[in-house]
Amino acid sequence: MRYALLLSYDGTNYSGWQVQKGSTTVQSVLEAALCRVLGQPVCVTASGRTDAGVHAAGQVCHFDATTSIPPTRIADAVNIVLPEDIRVQASCGAEPAFDCNRSAKRKTYVYRMYCARREHPLLDRYAVRVFPAGDWDRMRQAAEAMTGEHDFRAFCASGSSVKTTVRTVYDIRLEKSERYGLPVLELYVTGNGFLYHMVRTIAGTILAVGQGLRSCDDIRTALTSGNRDCLGRTMPAKGLTLLRVEYPTVLFEG
Amino acid sequence: MRYALLLSYDGTNYSGWQVQKGSTTVQSVLEAALCRVLGQPVCVTASGRTDAGVHAAGQVCHFDATTSIPPTRIADAVNIVLPEDIRVQASCGAEPAFDCNRSAKRKTYVYRMYCARREHPLLDRYAVRVFPAGDWDRMRQAAEAMTGEHDFRAFCASGSSVKTTVRTVYDIRLEKSERYGLPVLELYVTGNGFLYHMVRTIAGTILAVGQGLRSCDDIRTALTSGNRDCLGRTMPAKGLTLLRVEYPTVLFEG
Repeated sequence: MRYALLLSYDGTNYSGWQVQKGSTTVQSVLEAALCRVLGQPVCVTASGRTDAGVHAAGQVCHFDATTSIPPTRIADAVNIVLPEDIRVQASCGAEPAFDCNRSAKRKTYVYRMYCARREHPLLDRYAVRVFPAGDWDRMRQAAEAMTGEHDFRAFCASGSSVKTTVRTVYDIRLEKSERYGLPVLELYVTGNGFLYHMVRTIAGTILAVGQGLRSCDDIRTALTSGNRDCLGRTMPAKGLTLLRVEYPTVLFEG
Repeated sequence: MRYALLLSYDGTNYSGWQVQKGSTTVQSVLEAALCRVLGQPVCVTASGRTDAGVHAAGQVCHFDATTSIPPTRIADAVNIVLPEDIRVQASCGAEPAFDCNRSAKRKTYVYRMYCARREHPLLDRYAVRVFPAGDWDRMRQAAEAMTGEHDFRAFCASGSSVKTTVRTVYDIRLEKSERYGLPVLELYVTGNGFLYHMVRTIAGTILAVGQGLRSCDDIRTALTSGNRDCLGRTMPAKGLTLLRVEYPTVLFEG
């Protein structure tokens, strides 16, 4: 039978999602835990492979297994053997045709930055320090320039092989707040899928436009020419969190 | 000359502030860093000794040293040799009579809880999971019952020796928010000083009243009788952050 898991993890101590020889990855730790609980080898597929250091609040994954444990009880059973920085938030049975990667309709990431002259230990685990803060209106314009269906090949790190680099970004929402007296900026990016390093390059480009290092015209040029040099830098992994993956039907109740 | 530091740290990997044999403490790591930078043994005094696992956004400490480094530049010099989870946010010269502990007028702590059936790795480092959520109005009434000048001896862990257990709590502010779809509750507690474990017992008592396990009458009884049994539990250290220490004059500019 096919099962789906809703997963959250702190990516700090992991070499990303995907199993790699000699590295501790979320997938390898989760598969070992499932194997221990279900008494059989388990191979897990995720909605997307998060990079080393990237966090997840709502990663979705699926696997096939034969067990008498009720589907919704698998979460608690696996959590007992998982390390504290990985937690299954919910588990359920899924249709045999359900594929958490191919069936995904929308994904939302959040990228977090805080503005300070010095690192702040209580912010620095899930956000990246930037200085100076960017101009708010320019950043919103930059976000708008990237919204919509575009060929995002300029936003894609080299070395990835995909059929098409066309993606639709439905929404980039900017939120300002304050923590420990420091300005915090959150970018919520929703799309039908993302290329390798795409969200981190979107974040770096919005920041660069805000800081006056790039312009909205540079973004439009990059989207038509595919020229990476028009964009901002690829921001560090630790500021990125996979928030939510949406499917045509609701997977996890409650 | 006397110097003051504004300090933030992630307390997760420290056995609290105070130097102890065989343990890594914030004080011991900071003193070693200052010694290395200033080339002399340095003894640092804090506004208060945070417990093992407690965090700080705005701890203040002072020390005496002789150096040609300009006072405001000490911060960057020390940060170079400090581990990432401790950062000096600002440094300055201070009057010889300044004592960061005795001169402190007000301290503010924040205690964070989130309500969930399962631990969330992205919330669990700086907040404590509780379930169920407490009733908001009852919690506010509990906070009010503890505000003011009281003998807080019931809130004080045994083993501490202090001249008086009378303290003034100026304000306990409750703030509700949401993160990753989960309710987050922050308690901001400001007072002229706090007994050992006092803020964590205040937090546990507010929660216990919210959950219907204790009443505001129990709080009033504890404040007059000193009976610890009327109160809620002492909440875990990781939910507690020392936010701010205030002095008669502004120490750190900007």
